[in-house]
Amino acid sequence: MNKVKPALLRGFDQEYLPQEQLQFNALVDVIRRNFELYGFLPIEAPSAERKEVLTSKGGVEKEIYALSRLAAGADDDEAATKGALRFDLTVPLARYVAMRERELAFPFRRYQIQRVWRGETPQARKGRFREFYQCDIDIIGRDKLSYLAEAEIPSVIYSVFREMGIGDFRIRINNRKVLKGLLQHFSVQEERAPAVLRILDKAEKEDASGIRAQLEAEGLPGASARELFELVSGKRGTRETLQVLAKYRDCEQGVGELSAIADAIRAFGVPDSAFGVDLGVVRGLDYYTGTIYETTLVNYPELGSICSGGRYDDLASYFTDTKLPGVGISIGLTRLFSKLKEAGLLKAPARTPAEVLVTTMEHQDLGEYLKMARMLRDAGINTEVYLEPAKLKNQLAYAEKKGFRVALIAGETEFAKQVVQVKNLAARSAADHPLGELVAAVRVLLQQSPELKSS
Amino acid sequence: MNKVKPALLRGFDQEYLPQEQLQFNALVDVIRRNFELYGFLPIEAPSAERKEVLTSKGGVEKEIYALSRLAAGADDDEAATKGALRFDLTVPLARYVAMRERELAFPFRRYQIQRVWRGETPQARKGRFREFYQCDIDIIGRDKLSYLAEAEIPSVIYSVFREMGIGDFRIRINNRKVLKGLLQHFSVQEERAPAVLRILDKAEKEDASGIRAQLEAEGLPGASARELFELVSGKRGTRETLQVLAKYRDCEQGVGELSAIADAIRAFGVPDSAFGVDLGVVRGLDYYTGTIYETTLVNYPELGSICSGGRYDDLASYFTDTKLPGVGISIGLTRLFSKLKEAGLLKAPARTPAEVLVTTMEHQDLGEYLKMARMLRDAGINTEVYLEPAKLKNQLAYAEKKGFRVALIAGETEFAKQVVQVKNLAARSAADHPLGELVAAVRVLLQQSPELKSS
Repeated sequence: MNKVKPALLRGFDQEYLPQEQLQFNALVDVIRRNFELYGFLPIEAPSAERKEVLTSKGGVEKEIYALSRLAAGADDDEAATKGALRFDLTVPLARYVAMRERELAFPFRRYQIQRVWRGETPQARKGRFREFYQCDIDIIGRDKLSYLAEAEIPSVIYSVFREMGIGDFRIRINNRKVLKGLLQHFSVQEERAPAVLRILDKAEKEDASGIRAQLEAEGLPGASARELFELVSGKRGTRETLQVLAKYRDCEQGVGELSAIADAIRAFGVPDSAFGVDLGVVRGLDYYTGTIYETTLVNYPELGSICSGGRYDDLASYFTDTKLPGVGISIGLTRLFSKLKEAGLLKAPARTPAEVLVTTMEHQDLGEYLKMARMLRDAGINTEVYLEPAKLKNQLAYAEKKGFRVALIAGETEFAKQVVQVKNLAARSAADHPLGELVAAVRVLLQQSPELKSS
Repeated sequence: MNKVKPALLRGFDQEYLPQEQLQFNALVDVIRRNFELYGFLPIEAPSAERKEVLTSKGGVEKEIYALSRLAAGADDDEAATKGALRFDLTVPLARYVAMRERELAFPFRRYQIQRVWRGETPQARKGRFREFYQCDIDIIGRDKLSYLAEAEIPSVIYSVFREMGIGDFRIRINNRKVLKGLLQHFSVQEERAPAVLRILDKAEKEDASGIRAQLEAEGLPGASARELFELVSGKRGTRETLQVLAKYRDCEQGVGELSAIADAIRAFGVPDSAFGVDLGVVRGLDYYTGTIYETTLVNYPELGSICSGGRYDDLASYFTDTKLPGVGISIGLTRLFSKLKEAGLLKAPARTPAEVLVTTMEHQDLGEYLKMARMLRDAGINTEVYLEPAKLKNQLAYAEKKGFRVALIAGETEFAKQVVQVKNLAARSAADHPLGELVAAVRVLLQQSPELKSS
């Protein structure tokens, strides 16, 4: 028979072995737990939305995947004619809130951990894929939303990445009103503001003279381009930045907000070592109107921002007249995971579901093994019974490959004495225990810190 | 501005409010926990696969969603030309195992909880949607797989649905070899066997004379059609069924297997009250070769099978020469959830992430509230601080709507006395506690069984 090559689509290729999947899931668990710790509740959206919903806010059409039937179907299928896959979680959130406005409690705090799809050119090196996970939180007010919501967001980010244990990180904040004030100060025309912001967004990554030339091409005089570039790319602490900004009268409102929010962020428990005001945070999107956030790993700045977002004034203006101001951030988890793996920063999960393997001997009564397994499972201990006839050596190799913590070994001799050999697979040590003490003995081993080999 | 209607696509419309999402997630947690309890490890596959992978085993092309770009993109995008969304989790599993054969530990036991997409006509009444979750486990052997794997599957199903607490259920098993033997006995031609099996699969739901007529149309004499129908649709216990089958010589091998597996299922701890041999289990797919499973709720047979599957001889013959026999089952969770909701069988989750709301008073120092929140979060208690200026009444209404268990109330008087009012929202009772005892007091309330109002 002709074989079909078992292969993945380019960009739809972040698929893991079970051991890696467990590491990925451990990150998801940290994120979920911390989102819930701050009062966010989960929602999920369908994968496909109406095209007009996705393009309402100006999604990039050539990056959106539309659906059709592989072969014509008889029945009318909206999804195949009007449906496309979401490219982010913000547009579905806007649609969700507009649809369910009357049923939701405001301020509406939701988290959402789902896949999104973007027809961009995949670059594994940059962690850019066509299908990837986003982990979002947003706080949506109805008509109004206190600036305190903007100050709270960094405390959630702080909580997530501290528990993730991926080294020092820095939550960098800026305020769109400050940037707007600067553009005003330098007399940038309103219609050129988006382009200028996009140039400034690259200021930290690209060559200084190139950025200045691009700013000049947008109509800024040489001296202004130099000053603006220097403001955005210069490295200063929070206090110094606010001092430097003090002389720009057009930034007064923005600086006032930024300063109040920085104070509140401290009150929310984020230490100064983990956050700072940084004019280099610009964010490309027009969308943001207040605080904007980026998060970088201190020892791996080349990974870029691992968590970004900001404040916006109106989430769902394309769907409803209700004003829905909000603030949110997004963690691009597939990208983060691929970069952490590359940098060797992934740790073995604190707990693996592969706990106990009951090895079996061919001529022994299966019932005895199943009884042990049942005792352990009743105690909430994950237990697999090896059901194929195989040499003990092969069963133990299986246990190791799958990452089991403990193996049980028993044959005629052990059953006659009513004991079982309990083997600590990481420590390569073993001891006999009476059957009646099995659960306790296994529990002691599982409570020791796991010495999982990384896969 | 012209508004876009915030609406969902037909069949892509199972989207929940946060309280419902929590109920859904509670079912996912039960399923995942029990899959792991039996030694299954997680994998996830990309949403889109190569078309030739999806159609290799004869997927129904008119039900498969292909991908394309909404607007033409400059770059070459495999997904947009060669990609389509998976319609089940079995074909991606076959591709996965064939791709990673050398890296996996066999028998390979994986669970997978993901969405699948099928362009069928949606019928909310039947719980049929175009996008839905499947929760699958499979055990894949390399070259061989013991019949004990077939006997173990019902114990996992039993464990899942017992913990789910949705009432009495019955795991009904049959064996393809028995069915094959019966068709042989009644001289059904090999090429007509698939059609006859599909007719028998409907025997329990459709009118007797109609089924008999359909069988006759496939070439069975009237008496044979009657006897076959009677065999498949008659209600008997396990022992009686095996006795009835004893007289069909062609079924000997199948009956032997079925009988051995029924014995082993008992050894695996499934009581006779929860499973039984039932010739009415037929399953449409050609694919199965040994034990086949269906699971029905005793009090809600009209929901149909909530968990089905079977043994197959060769998972990935389209991709590899390695013989990969396996056995697996699938829970159609979106459908099950929609039917449980309809039947009023959904219970409030044992634990809701919305634990404590710290209410705030406008002229009070925010720092005091944040300090309480930090104390609680440090103790692992999910805590939200209400950050908008609002009347206490409105804050409590918010807490109730969101399903919080506890609200904290403190103003000038309380802070002067270093106490806080701890309000049990379900019981509508409240008591003052010293700040130093806050964590302990809240913990006591959270440990009481939740009296969540269903949404």
